[in-house]
Amino acid sequence: MKYFIGIDLGGTNVRTLLVDENGQSYSEVKDATEREKGPDAVTAKICRQIEAIDYTVCGGIENVEGIGIGVPGPVDVVKGVMIMASNLPGFENYPIAEKLSTKFNKPVFLDNDANVAGLAEAVLGAGKNYPTCYYVTVSTGIGGAFTVNKQLISGGRGHAGEIGNIIVKNNGYKQGALNPGAAEGECSGTAITRKGQEALGKDLVHHAGDVFRLAAEGNETAQGIADECISELATLFANIAHTVDPHCFVVGGGVMKSKKYFLDQLTKEFNQKIHVGMRNHIPLLETELEDCGAIGAAMLPMTRMKAE
Amino acid sequence: MKYFIGIDLGGTNVRTLLVDENGQSYSEVKDATEREKGPDAVTAKICRQIEAIDYTVCGGIENVEGIGIGVPGPVDVVKGVMIMASNLPGFENYPIAEKLSTKFNKPVFLDNDANVAGLAEAVLGAGKNYPTCYYVTVSTGIGGAFTVNKQLISGGRGHAGEIGNIIVKNNGYKQGALNPGAAEGECSGTAITRKGQEALGKDLVHHAGDVFRLAAEGNETAQGIADECISELATLFANIAHTVDPHCFVVGGGVMKSKKYFLDQLTKEFNQKIHVGMRNHIPLLETELEDCGAIGAAMLPMTRMKAE
Repeated sequence: MKYFIGIDLGGTNVRTLLVDENGQSYSEVKDATEREKGPDAVTAKICRQIEAIDYTVCGGIENVEGIGIGVPGPVDVVKGVMIMASNLPGFENYPIAEKLSTKFNKPVFLDNDANVAGLAEAVLGAGKNYPTCYYVTVSTGIGGAFTVNKQLISGGRGHAGEIGNIIVKNNGYKQGALNPGAAEGECSGTAITRKGQEALGKDLVHHAGDVFRLAAEGNETAQGIADECISELATLFANIAHTVDPHCFVVGGGVMKSKKYFLDQLTKEFNQKIHVGMRNHIPLLETELEDCGAIGAAMLPMTRMKAE
Repeated sequence: MKYFIGIDLGGTNVRTLLVDENGQSYSEVKDATEREKGPDAVTAKICRQIEAIDYTVCGGIENVEGIGIGVPGPVDVVKGVMIMASNLPGFENYPIAEKLSTKFNKPVFLDNDANVAGLAEAVLGAGKNYPTCYYVTVSTGIGGAFTVNKQLISGGRGHAGEIGNIIVKNNGYKQGALNPGAAEGECSGTAITRKGQEALGKDLVHHAGDVFRLAAEGNETAQGIADECISELATLFANIAHTVDPHCFVVGGGVMKSKKYFLDQLTKEFNQKIHVGMRNHIPLLETELEDCGAIGAAMLPMTRMKAE
């Protein structure tokens, strides 16, 4: 049995986990990230977490094959550094992988949190029986991850899966640095909430789920917003499908809490927007794993070391 | 040195070529397809072509490693059959790979002609120095091909690269079975010609190149059409880039004859529509190979047998 260390490094918490090659989790250490203390302090904390893990099951840290880290932002996977790090100030181009590799004398792999979650679903979750899998998370933002034979396609600049910036509406809403009409500005949880609050008021709409619930209850304004957003999500999924024709989609994120209100309609509209030869051949599967950031991170050394 | 047979099976002509692992071409046989005689007759013709090749360079057909076939339409690459065959009547689900494999006792691989051209560019052409490559052809239609480490990503139903159906304009032109506002209906050579003829008349516009030439000469109507189509192409390239972040695009097809009028503007607008972290990192390269259908088909067994 092979063992790996997975680290889920977020803006709020950082979590280190010992995982075996079947995805079974063992010892875990979790702390507040305290990102304001800067990358050297955060890296020192991660080192302490790695040393605090109980390695009884594998007979000692010397029997761990490698370390994987999931981070909130695009990554240069060759250099093992973050390209942008708005949620982890100071981590842009910071050599975290090199530092951990030197300290523990093991291979260290870095990728962004959506890619890591998509990898976990592809290896251990809903996508495990499919040769290729496109993971899509619809939450505060919209992100994704493409895996081929359980290998992440990270892209030339670590931006594969940055599908929140795909244009689904010409001259649409301009959110932050995204394109006008980008998916994240039109049909993310944040966007659905914004549209709902604009049309129905902040008393009725606190989050995206309220829009779908009101639509199901017969509120025509909410129905209009839900229909528009579902149509935009269908365009997003169809554009991805025509680009890589994945064997399955795996769909996660907070908006999936309202799946009973929209998943059937999304599936129907998605199939109307793809070539007849693909129609009803690409399932939109629900995620099977919860809180899979650290497990997915552990899959990085497992899958990358196999490929090399 | 390893040798492969590549077959470019088109609706008009069929061509069989002996190729080595460096992409060097040797003996070639070319005939009219005579598709109206049906798949059995076309397959018999291909068998005769394979037997008519001069195998002196490799010492005999017994030293050929495998056979690849490029066909005009989506393919089930596992079964080795076409899924749709509007240009080759009778070839839908016809077991051409199995028939050739039985007859010549060699592995036979099938893929569609855009994928095969993209593979040739990735292995031997403009993309050869890049780990991943997205090939885009803008011609009568719009097609594409995605390669990762010189392996085609064909997709679950052989539709990876069917990017002509990606939506670039909401409620846009409805061409055939494509989505309203699909790229192929908005910014293919056919679409640019249609828009030009509608606005400027058939006397001034015979093909897409006329629109770009008139725009360059100062015709404001032509400039408006050119600007619109370039903007739509930029959206298409940006959508693909956010999905897989390729290390390069390789751009081919008849519309590239007008590259001096549009390629700089397309590159500029594409870069405006992608995340800042990717900006100016994904080159839009011109194809380097000509008439590469049969060579690309020969790359199918070369790359697939290496992977298996």
